[in-house]
Amino acid sequence: MTGELGLQTYLKWIEPRLADLLPEEDEAPSPLAQAMRYSVLSPGKRLRPALAMACAEASGGDPLRALDAGCAVEVVHCFSLIHDDLPAIDNDDLRRGRPTCHKVYGEAVAILAGDALFALAFQILGASNAGLDGVLELARATGFHGVVGGETMDVLAENQEITAEELRTIHQKKTGALFACACAVGAQSVGSPAAGLLREYGQQLGLAFQIVDDILNETSSAEQLGKAAGSDRDRKKATYPALYGLDRSRELASETIDRALACLEPLPGPTGVLKNLAYFALQRSK
Amino acid sequence: MTGELGLQTYLKWIEPRLADLLPEEDEAPSPLAQAMRYSVLSPGKRLRPALAMACAEASGGDPLRALDAGCAVEVVHCFSLIHDDLPAIDNDDLRRGRPTCHKVYGEAVAILAGDALFALAFQILGASNAGLDGVLELARATGFHGVVGGETMDVLAENQEITAEELRTIHQKKTGALFACACAVGAQSVGSPAAGLLREYGQQLGLAFQIVDDILNETSSAEQLGKAAGSDRDRKKATYPALYGLDRSRELASETIDRALACLEPLPGPTGVLKNLAYFALQRSK
Repeated sequence: MTGELGLQTYLKWIEPRLADLLPEEDEAPSPLAQAMRYSVLSPGKRLRPALAMACAEASGGDPLRALDAGCAVEVVHCFSLIHDDLPAIDNDDLRRGRPTCHKVYGEAVAILAGDALFALAFQILGASNAGLDGVLELARATGFHGVVGGETMDVLAENQEITAEELRTIHQKKTGALFACACAVGAQSVGSPAAGLLREYGQQLGLAFQIVDDILNETSSAEQLGKAAGSDRDRKKATYPALYGLDRSRELASETIDRALACLEPLPGPTGVLKNLAYFALQRSK
Repeated sequence: MTGELGLQTYLKWIEPRLADLLPEEDEAPSPLAQAMRYSVLSPGKRLRPALAMACAEASGGDPLRALDAGCAVEVVHCFSLIHDDLPAIDNDDLRRGRPTCHKVYGEAVAILAGDALFALAFQILGASNAGLDGVLELARATGFHGVVGGETMDVLAENQEITAEELRTIHQKKTGALFACACAVGAQSVGSPAAGLLREYGQQLGLAFQIVDDILNETSSAEQLGKAAGSDRDRKKATYPALYGLDRSRELASETIDRALACLEPLPGPTGVLKNLAYFALQRSK
């Protein structure tokens, strides 16, 4: 995948930087350090830090200046996955093809590893080029009005009838908010005034990813996904295919990506990678 | 208690400000807003925000400038209590004399309410007079090297023999780190160079509070404590009385407070409240 999208230059910086930013495996309490490293350093697409770097470049700046801010957003993403997978929430045993954090380290350490990653993200971001603007962006994107609020709405919507508007809100908060945040902190890291435009691009891109996730969950095998397929439907969770059917869901994803692409027009730097990511969001198979 | 300590002036600002900073009860998702408000607005001593305000004043500044930074630390404290009380961690049913968050709102919402409070704390602090220094102070105090690391060590120490040094480390991280943070952000809120001294005062004060907590857990009834008495001992948790006996634990608390008081000598502003808090830490009965 990365070859087609032009992300290699970013990814070669992101993986080692994430490893550097985490506590060493043998640092006390070592089960906590290990759980944090296990969750963050498992194979992932690293879309959020790559987005931050691509947005810095699209703003006309040096993408490396957005490396740490992007890594902070990735760390928050990993924290949210650990907590979402917990028995009390989504009760998932597999994530990215490997046992979830609580299956390996136990529930107590998994909850605390999520908390420690959340704190680490603010520590990284506070020391990054995105500075205080980035901290406020991340706090808003993750809290009551962002990721955590969206996850709560999703939990409360299980086995409930919800409207199309409610479903869109859940997806915007659960996925869109953090994509938008990654894009905005990328722009902030190079002092660009385009943070607003790029935040909107990220919001739409995240929404498209989540719609396509829903579609793939409905249509793919467990082997392709690295998690139990059809698990959303089995639990009667709110999904786009459940509400609109598969065909209309695909149209909605496509319209969302058109809105994302429109945000890139006025930018001063190269936007090829951001455009590739938008097309990839639609066409991916896992 | 507050009458004797001289905290009334601070407390009358803290309670309404906390209520203002939280999402409204009917804001969606309302069970999340309710769980956040339930946990933060339950009767508490508000020692951390009071400390922040008293430290601003002891630095020669206006204590009101530290109100928001102090409230951010209180919000983090409440988040850590919610997660510590969870069935997978300490499994406590009572907190401050009331059912714990997960007993009222369920485990999923309790985990997410903790997460949302953590994000809110950084949002408040980032917008406060403590600014970026405060954000970095809080991130360090709460993460792997602070509260969350300490709680993990505590969990891992259950039913294990630990050394006196390990026990002191646990207490410094679990309680000392956040007291120290409250004091430092108080000084930072008024641009004082005394943040280092006050951080050390807070560290020692927090340690004393935790030693006395251990002693009270050993000697008090459930009615006095508002939580199950002797619960630490029943689970063979690492405590000062278990390691040193009650008399030596009391001496250690007293020596700790002497070190806290020594930090106050060079300060330019009034330190009466900080001294009262130090004496109170030793003499309280619940």
